[in-house]
Amino acid sequence: MNDMSNTPDPSTLSPEELIKELATRGRAAQRKLARIGDERKAEALRAAAAAIRRDEATILEANAKDLSEAEARGLSGAMLDRLKLDAERLEGIASAIENVASLPDPVGEEISRSEAPAGMTLVRRRIPIGLIGIIYESRPNVTADAASLCLRSGNAALLRGGSEAVHSNRALHAAFVKGVSQEGVPEDAIQLMPTQDREAVGAMLKAAGLVDMIVPRGGKSLVARVQEDARVPVLAHLDGICHTYIHADADPEMAREIALNAKMRRTGICGAMETLLIDSLFDDCTDVLSALLDAGCELRGDARAQELDDRIKPADDEDWDTEYLDAILSVAVVNGIGEALEHIAAHSSGHTDVIVTADDAAAQRFLDEVDSAIVMHNASSQFADGGEFGLGAEIGIATGRLHARGPVALEGLTTYKWQVLGQGQARS
Amino acid sequence: MNDMSNTPDPSTLSPEELIKELATRGRAAQRKLARIGDERKAEALRAAAAAIRRDEATILEANAKDLSEAEARGLSGAMLDRLKLDAERLEGIASAIENVASLPDPVGEEISRSEAPAGMTLVRRRIPIGLIGIIYESRPNVTADAASLCLRSGNAALLRGGSEAVHSNRALHAAFVKGVSQEGVPEDAIQLMPTQDREAVGAMLKAAGLVDMIVPRGGKSLVARVQEDARVPVLAHLDGICHTYIHADADPEMAREIALNAKMRRTGICGAMETLLIDSLFDDCTDVLSALLDAGCELRGDARAQELDDRIKPADDEDWDTEYLDAILSVAVVNGIGEALEHIAAHSSGHTDVIVTADDAAAQRFLDEVDSAIVMHNASSQFADGGEFGLGAEIGIATGRLHARGPVALEGLTTYKWQVLGQGQARS
Repeated sequence: MNDMSNTPDPSTLSPEELIKELATRGRAAQRKLARIGDERKAEALRAAAAAIRRDEATILEANAKDLSEAEARGLSGAMLDRLKLDAERLEGIASAIENVASLPDPVGEEISRSEAPAGMTLVRRRIPIGLIGIIYESRPNVTADAASLCLRSGNAALLRGGSEAVHSNRALHAAFVKGVSQEGVPEDAIQLMPTQDREAVGAMLKAAGLVDMIVPRGGKSLVARVQEDARVPVLAHLDGICHTYIHADADPEMAREIALNAKMRRTGICGAMETLLIDSLFDDCTDVLSALLDAGCELRGDARAQELDDRIKPADDEDWDTEYLDAILSVAVVNGIGEALEHIAAHSSGHTDVIVTADDAAAQRFLDEVDSAIVMHNASSQFADGGEFGLGAEIGIATGRLHARGPVALEGLTTYKWQVLGQGQARS
Repeated sequence: MNDMSNTPDPSTLSPEELIKELATRGRAAQRKLARIGDERKAEALRAAAAAIRRDEATILEANAKDLSEAEARGLSGAMLDRLKLDAERLEGIASAIENVASLPDPVGEEISRSEAPAGMTLVRRRIPIGLIGIIYESRPNVTADAASLCLRSGNAALLRGGSEAVHSNRALHAAFVKGVSQEGVPEDAIQLMPTQDREAVGAMLKAAGLVDMIVPRGGKSLVARVQEDARVPVLAHLDGICHTYIHADADPEMAREIALNAKMRRTGICGAMETLLIDSLFDDCTDVLSALLDAGCELRGDARAQELDDRIKPADDEDWDTEYLDAILSVAVVNGIGEALEHIAAHSSGHTDVIVTADDAAAQRFLDEVDSAIVMHNASSQFADGGEFGLGAEIGIATGRLHARGPVALEGLTTYKWQVLGQGQARS
């Protein structure tokens, strides 16, 4: 279904040669893309959404092939659900592309302007990063999501999806490229890896200087492998071990509502609370804990937490470093904010940590001292999301310390250059 | 001379254990440092400068030991000069620390403030990166330079200098730490690696999660090794293959002055021009070239350049990718800005590239399309420097694409976190 005539033939190239060829094409296309204006990039994305709607039958047929192969290989129901497309989900993919089209283009923004001691004007201007590799698993919507965010910010993308979704990804990619090329975007700006060969992924991870950044989107084992093997900078989060600390002066109702939401709204997302720290001076501990237990959450507590409700099981050492992604929560009773901060410093994965309190000084101390990408006062950690942050979309959440942290959207897919405007200055 | 009683004993620990111990101490100290205010950090740096002045005799004695050992090992005169300290150079080191003390502290700055769709206030606030590893060669001043920039921006530093300068570095480090600790800065905030063992450097490069960033400062082989082996993010530049393109509409006198300055002011710095591209329609080619030749520069040209002056030697393919760091320059004649941009895209190291022209449209095209950390119009590439950019100092020049590009000073040693100020919001 995808016209592969123009893509490099992986059977005749080594993994390194293949990546070099794909990267060379992607980089050349990116240089052309960089000269396409804001409105035309937005138009190209709208054309991609239209093309995906037009190709619905072809895409769903390709997805049915993936699904039947996956069923034959005995994939779990949850895996099949992630893989599955239908008319409604495909419309969601198309609308998401249109949403990205409507976001402001960060490219060209003047970040700073100053005058050098020798008189030149110095402008730091936002530019695309270049060629971004996206490595993902079974959700085919990532093909369109990642492609549209990269294109909106002027980057070329090299997409490598999961083997289970190979037909769906090819069909989505073909429609996307057909759409954007109507507006003059070079086809090679958005490339799908023409092989599922794992060695090609290995070569991509090592292609420093050819690929500018890698974004892995998927489970812990995928991200860990990418972080371990990559020579190219990686933007990723490995774990979301998010804490909620209920301070002595928390409003009891707010504490219960935030704790319930942070854990139980959706247990499988990276912003879900995994550890609850309750201050020993908070009067309504049992209330919060029984609300969680009543909602069907398994609680694993330290000795003091266990005394509060006999349904609480004992936690072992590992529990404090576990991302359950399930209706399970570890609970510790702490003596004051100092102990809470120590626990978080020792066990947080640097994703999102929350304090619930009516005491502004305690809140400020928590916001200042917790060293995570996102720190919240009186809000559910489930808000850790690009859309909820008003960014319009996200390519992922980063827990590293450099470049971009927390929800990463278009701005995180850009870098800058210094433009120096002189009048003939020579350095003395 | 340095009180090593409190530092870990490298003889009883494996390289990995040593780095873990140093990093644990450094990280704990950084958390304390993060709570020390702006003015106190500045005071601490002024105390460090005073301590270095007070310890002049001890430091120069240590340096004399390094020098005599280096001479005995037959180090070159240039190497000895890099290593050498005297009263004047030591005063330069102390004043540089005071200069860093006077720079505005970037920590705490509000980068952005917005309202989330659910009503929380979102603040992106600048924070220190954490623990920064600095790996450098024979110049002992880097010990104080790097330490003061890290400390000013609230970071802990783990310094590893060259073996030739081991006594000088220890003496400088001891004085620096003595000074800053008078103002309550924990001693472990600025640690000097207690061994010159190369395996300890290897372990430091791989200490992802313990060391947050590595900045190599030194020659190409050091930087290449760091980039190859590191699992920790690296901020560095490998090469400075800087181009100057003299456009057809360049002012002849300005072109000559900029070319001479960009090449000959100091040939050994990374911002020195290494390739001159002259437009075939620029009328005063011979003038510029003979000025360079008369100034003692060796020119290696393509066929057309060689026709312009019989003192020009032939360039071979390698010349276009060579950072001479010497009074040697490769010269190519190009037909128009398109050819100049192509040459630069193929051969620039992404450091600094310059156009000289009176044509604003050509200048704008060059500034937009050249994809280097620094692009200049009508100025010498020798201005590629943190001081000349008004940043007050620099930890280095970065040619990577992520986090920070070009001259990196205090802001490049920071990251940010999201502070989310809610009123009890739960996600629907």
